[in-house]
Order: sequence, then C-alpha cells, then structure tokens
Amino acid sequence: MTTSAAEQATGEVRDRSFHSAVERFRTGSDTPRDYLERRLAVIDEREPTVQAWVTTNVAAARAAADASTERWQRQSPLSAIDGLPLGVKDLLETKDMPTQMGCAAYAGNFPRHDNAAVWALREAGAVVLGKTVTAELGGTHPGPTTNPFDVSRTPGGSSSGSAAAVGAGMVPATIGTQVAGSIIRPASYCANWALKPSQGAVNRGERQATSMSTHGVHATCPEDMWLVAIAMAARAGGDPGYPALAGPENTTPAAAQPYSVGLMQTEGWDSLDPATLRAFDQVVAQLVELGCPIVGRDTSPTLEDFEQSLVGVRDVALSITAWENHWRLRGVVAANPSGVSERGQQTLDVARQLGADGYAHLISRRHHVRLRHAALSGAAEVLVSLASPGPAPEWSGDVPGRPPAPWPTGDPVFNAPSSLLGTPVVTVPLMWVHGLPVGLQVMGQPGSDARVTAIARWFAEKITAVHVS
Amino acid sequence: MTTSAAEQATGEVRDRSFHSAVERFRTGSDTPRDYLERRLAVIDEREPTVQAWVTTNVAAARAAADASTERWQRQSPLSAIDGLPLGVKDLLETKDMPTQMGCAAYAGNFPRHDNAAVWALREAGAVVLGKTVTAELGGTHPGPTTNPFDVSRTPGGSSSGSAAAVGAGMVPATIGTQVAGSIIRPASYCANWALKPSQGAVNRGERQATSMSTHGVHATCPEDMWLVAIAMAARAGGDPGYPALAGPENTTPAAAQPYSVGLMQTEGWDSLDPATLRAFDQVVAQLVELGCPIVGRDTSPTLEDFEQSLVGVRDVALSITAWENHWRLRGVVAANPSGVSERGQQTLDVARQLGADGYAHLISRRHHVRLRHAALSGAAEVLVSLASPGPAPEWSGDVPGRPPAPWPTGDPVFNAPSSLLGTPVVTVPLMWVHGLPVGLQVMGQPGSDARVTAIARWFAEKITAVHVS
Repeated sequence: MTTSAAEQATGEVRDRSFHSAVERFRTGSDTPRDYLERRLAVIDEREPTVQAWVTTNVAAARAAADASTERWQRQSPLSAIDGLPLGVKDLLETKDMPTQMGCAAYAGNFPRHDNAAVWALREAGAVVLGKTVTAELGGTHPGPTTNPFDVSRTPGGSSSGSAAAVGAGMVPATIGTQVAGSIIRPASYCANWALKPSQGAVNRGERQATSMSTHGVHATCPEDMWLVAIAMAARAGGDPGYPALAGPENTTPAAAQPYSVGLMQTEGWDSLDPATLRAFDQVVAQLVELGCPIVGRDTSPTLEDFEQSLVGVRDVALSITAWENHWRLRGVVAANPSGVSERGQQTLDVARQLGADGYAHLISRRHHVRLRHAALSGAAEVLVSLASPGPAPEWSGDVPGRPPAPWPTGDPVFNAPSSLLGTPVVTVPLMWVHGLPVGLQVMGQPGSDARVTAIARWFAEKITAVHVS
Repeated sequence: MTTSAAEQATGEVRDRSFHSAVERFRTGSDTPRDYLERRLAVIDEREPTVQAWVTTNVAAARAAADASTERWQRQSPLSAIDGLPLGVKDLLETKDMPTQMGCAAYAGNFPRHDNAAVWALREAGAVVLGKTVTAELGGTHPGPTTNPFDVSRTPGGSSSGSAAAVGAGMVPATIGTQVAGSIIRPASYCANWALKPSQGAVNRGERQATSMSTHGVHATCPEDMWLVAIAMAARAGGDPGYPALAGPENTTPAAAQPYSVGLMQTEGWDSLDPATLRAFDQVVAQLVELGCPIVGRDTSPTLEDFEQSLVGVRDVALSITAWENHWRLRGVVAANPSGVSERGQQTLDVARQLGADGYAHLISRRHHVRLRHAALSGAAEVLVSLASPGPAPEWSGDVPGRPPAPWPTGDPVFNAPSSLLGTPVVTVPLMWVHGLPVGLQVMGQPGSDARVTAIARWFAEKITAVHVS
C-alpha cells in the first residue's frame, strides 16, 4: 500500500506547520498566541504518555507569543519564525530554565544564560517553550520519552524529547544535537523532517568540547526546518573558525532535482530486516522512474572505496567522542560517582583504553574517510540511505542485575558517517514499515546544506510515500 | 655592553633550572622536596612585591614532592619532570584550588576537577604548587602582579603571574595561555623562555570556546620549557581534531642551525624605540656573522606580501576572540553587571558591533594571512622578530574618572601574528634594553614546534646576549 507524501503532508500536518500559519498571521485570521494555545492543548493531551519535556515555561512562552502577535499585527515580524514555539534539547543552556542534561549529577543545574543558538532564536522572535528530554549527557542512556507512534518503542536518542515533541504534533520545531546519530535517527523514528547541518555551521557558543557535535533542527515540514536553522546561523554564525550555514534567510531553498544520486549502505546494511529493505528499494525504484542517475557501490569503484572506508566508523565516531568528552565526564564522576549511569560511565573506560595516541590514530582514520567522501563529489551529488536501521526498536528498560543493553535508543550505524564526515544530512519522512515511520537520509558535501535541503524537498514532492508490512 | 647568553645561563639560573637538578636527584645529592623548599624560600622573599600567585596549596605540593622524592630514590620517576613544581594560570581548572580567572564575577569559583593539561602534568609527576595571576578572563585588564625586574612595570599579560613567577625564580616553569600575545610577550618582559605551541597542539580539555587560544609554557631554560609542554601533549593529546605536539618525550630537541631566517616586522615596527631597534639589529648582525641566510621584506617579495597581509592583524585577532568569547561573557555580565571590569565589558561592544557576518569576514582575512605565511615556508624556515615592542612599559593603574588606558599589560602588536597563524613560537631571552629584558621571538610553520625549539636553542648557544642603553 502506498499513499503520496503530498497526502501525508496535508490535513493534520498542514495545521501543525508554523510556516503554513504565517499567512494567517499576516491577514489576522490567526495569531502566534492562538497557535501556541493549540500546541499547548496537544501537549496536555499527549505529554502524559510521550514524556517529551523536562520542563516548560508556559507563562514566558505566552508572553513571548503575545509580543509576537503584536509584531505580526503591525506587519513587522522579527523574522520568518517570529512566534514559532519550540523546544530546546536539555543540553543547551537557557536563561529561564535549568539545564540538567538528563544526568542526575546535573540535577538542578541552572546556568541562567542562553546558549548562542538559543539567544539567536529569541532574537528572531521564536518562543522558547521548554526543554526537551535528552539521553544522559547526549549519550545512549535513555530518558523517559516514548515513541509517539508506539509507546513500547524508543523515540530514538539522544535528541529523544526533541524528536517526540515534533512527532506528536506538540511543537512545529525543536533543537537537537548530534555527535553520531542523535538528530537524524530520532527523526526517522518519529516521522520528522530534520537537518543535521555541516560541522560548525551553527555556533555552539561555549559548548565546543567535541569535534563532531552539531546543533540541528527537527520539524514538521521542510520550511520550519530550514527557517529555524538559518535563523540561528544568521545571528550567531558558525562555530569558532567555521563558515556559518549559508542560504536564503526568509524563504526555504526551492525543490531541485539532483544531478546524480549515490546509494550509501554502510556496514549496517547486512543486518536490515526484509520489510525495511523493500521500502528502500521502492524509493530507489521511484528515483529511477523519475530519471535520476543512480550510482551504486556495484557500479562505481569510487563509491565502493568509500564504502570500504566506512567499515568500523560507528566505533570510530563513538570512541572519538568518548575521548573528547572524558575531560568533563571524569570530573563529574569523581565529584558524584552515583550521578552518572553505568552506561554513561562505560564511555570513560573507552577513553582510558584509547589514550592520546589511540585518539590521534582515529582522527587520522577520520581524515581518510573524509578524503574518500570528497572524492565522490563528481560521481554523486548526494548520497541517500536509510536514516535508521528500520523502524524504532522496542525498549522497556534495562533488566536489573544484567549489564546495560546496547543501543536502547536505536543503532547509529547509518548515522555515524555523516557525523564523522561533517556533512549536512536531511531526514525525509518517506517510508512506513509495519505502520511505523522510517526516514530517508539525504547527505551532501560539507557546506551544501541549502542544496541538500532543496533536493530533499524535491524527493518529498516527487516520491510517493512507501508503506510496507 | 654585551655578555654571553651562556654566562647569563650560569649561576643563579642554573640553580633554578629543574632540568639541571635532575642529575642530582638521580645520585641522591638533592631531592624534589629540597628543590621545592628552595623555591618556597624564593616565594617567601619575592611574593610580597611581585604578587604572582592567586593561591597556593603548599601542603599538597610538599606531599607530592615527597612522593616524587621517593620515586627518584627508587630510580623510577614518572617522567623527566617528575617533581617539577609549577604554577598554573588561574584560567585552568584545578581540582584542589579555586579557578577565579582574575574576575570578580568568578570569585570563589571552584570546579573541583583538573583541566586536561593539569591532569596530564600530575600524571607526569609534576607538583602543582598554585594558581598564578591572570589578567581578567585572559584579556587585558591587569591583576596586581608586578614585573620582577622593576616593580613600576607590568610583567605583561594575560599570563602575568606565570611570567613573573618564573622571572623571579619562584618556580622553574608555569602554564600560561595565549590568544593574541599572552605567553610570548610576558616572557619577553620577564626574561623567560616560553613556548606558544601550534594551535591545537596541547589539549585544552573543556576550554575550547576560542579558535586561537593555546596552552603554553614559561620556563627558566629550554629543557624545562620543552619537557613540560611535551608532558602535557603526550598524555592529553591535542585539541579535538588537532594533531598533538610532537617530538622527543624524555629529552629536548638538540640545538640546530636554521636553513634560513626571515625578519618579521609587523605594523609595530615603526613605533619602536631606538634602543630596542639597536638591540635587535645587533642580534641580526650576529646571525649574519654566524652564516645564517637572512631574508628581509626588502629582498623577498613573498615576505613583503606576507608583511602587507599583517596590517591590522592585531585588531583582527582581538575582534575574533571578542566574538568567540562573548557568548560566555554576555551571560556573566547579565548575571553580575559589576563583576566584570569596564575594560572587559568593552569587548562585548566589539562583539556586538562585529556580528556574525563581520566575524565571518575576519575568519576569511585570517585564512588569507595563513596562506601568505604558508607560501613563505620555502623562503624562510623561521621568522624572527621582537617578542614585545621594547621592554615592559610602566603601569601604575587606571586614573579614576578617565577611560581605561590601552594596553596596560603591553601591546600585543608583535604577538598577534603567531596567534592568528596558529604557529609555534618560542621566546628566547637574548636582549637587555636599559637593563630590562626583551625577548627574541622565533616562529615556524604550524606543527614545527620541536624544530623551532631546536633553532631557538641554537640561537641561545651561538648568540651573545645584547645589552643596550
């Protein structure tokens, strides 16, 4: 059974999209305050089950929405997202709410200033409604959030609450972060659009400790996704020394057909379930019908070289991040040994075993993979793959007395490449497997964020959503 | 009047050098504990005037020195710097002492963990004696430290206490940091050896917010300088994604003659006083006599291109850092408006006026200067210049009611290039102007830290120290 992505995008989704509401704000038939109240009603209904939020500041959000309403009535909004209510992953500092990072050791932590990206969003008039659940310290130890499509399944992680809040229709957009798959994979599990920008394209402010962490956006539609991302970069720029996300500020890059499409498998391919494989094959079949030149590892030796270089990159990415984070984590655990989960503390062991020399070796391997990917730019303008290895897995908690289970928020095997490469990636909600969402991942060369967004929109407009069971 | 650098290095300096004491530790004629006690006696004598230290932990230092003494007696030291007592600039976290950053807003701040570099030094057996005074937040607003050679003059900054503690013979080495000149210039004013490593070569741990900050070393002799620097890098590696400082771990790169030497002027050249100019000319004359091929802007168009690209780089460097630091500073000032000096708050205005687009433009200019410098590698293996625009200027405090004076810790006009370029630089104490020290600055291409150290040693061995009045 298949229904068109356009059909999926109508009705309820159209109502949730902030971008679609903006025309009504201009004419006065709707207001940001009314839009916020509709979202709060959804939160009231869904939050007891979904548990996407750590904390909200509804009074401040209503005041900000009223100020936005007044600006729209004067026809002088601060930006295209003036009045957009959003959630911020609880790793980023917010001046009016605690930042507890899903970690007992940070309970009550309240820095009382805004992260660079949060400051930029407020400057653009966005309404910072609350903090969304993160897996502990942005790692793999899950919080309480459930998948909005099936309460027995994970929403993905570490941007668990950011993904679920958008997937459940609570807000049109949220800020997530990714070091190995924390934006792209949860978006796949929650039927969201999501952008993981090029490395460094959105300023992380004081949060610069890791070389592969990026701020990104979950959203209901591509317009809300792009406009929130560019609002941050236009005001806060990129990370120290990096070029900022570039592209139009008041509109979304228009749908555009790619010159060529490569199929990326990664080492996760062999363990895919047959239904997910079938769904992906049906998407590729449509691309062929649409006249897209398709490149596979079987036809392109350059792509095969790249695939070979990807073997083991999930562990490479996670080990690099374990080392880069362990300076902070070591201090946190020393001060409060019971304040970090067993799963979280395992990353300290990874860092200790790696050491400075081991880390240097992995950076060298990363450089090698980046060269292999750069070499592909002539053969494939974008690489497409699954945004997750199938639909969200079930998760009901660790078993007391047993070691922590691996990947409680899902396996990042399809996501580690984009983090390791520093490339822009967009998740497009295009597949349904056994009634659960699976995203298509669209990846470009570093800096091509706007073009990847345009191509992702073209896929969404031209490809009929696939349903497999 | 001239005396040889070798003569300078004998006597009192030889006694202060930790490296020189190590042979005595091996034979048992001296111990790290006794060495520490001699340093503590100097501190007792000089600290009331010099005021280099914010805080010390003498009990912990004595315990660490005793443990080191025991290791040396067993002939099993942890490293070549096992037992070396040092000061750490009060920007870096230490688990047993507060980290107050020379800033009222951070009074009492006590993170209770070690910065990556401090952790590495302890692993190498170094004795972390105390925290040294920094100009406020590593900027230009000075602390109480005075110049060990003239109490009416600045020791330089922002690594004020680190420079003065070594210059006064209190400790053989200290850790400083530089974003525009904060290691190299104070070393010049205090007759120290100092290494500002290649950008990223020493892991800053969680302190990654700025793209041009480096940890570096002030020391009594080149051996203590190199061995402390490599001890940090060997254990903590480089910054995320950067190669670590590379070179021998248990010995110092041997003195080596450079293939060619370029003379770097920068835009500070025209405002030099005649005595300092004469001192530098006498050093260059000796290089010519030694048979070093010398390249100047008048003879090398490539060097002239590079010099042209340096016009304005002091402001470029300071503006880049103002932007990168303002995310933190904005929050600090908002929470505690009187907790940051007027001089410190001026950098917020710089950042606001710059904006994200202005910052991106300066990063582009930085890239241009780096390309010009890379192009020089064939023409000049190292560039030499003054490490400061003459000896330390007098400083007696701001005048109440008047705007803050510029450059109270000295002008970074000769230092901004190395920070902007990310290059390794060594200060060699080779000149005395009106009885006050002025250093020679030796700069190489990024990654050539060990070679620059070897060349700096060669200069110190071959060039007779210059005295001009």
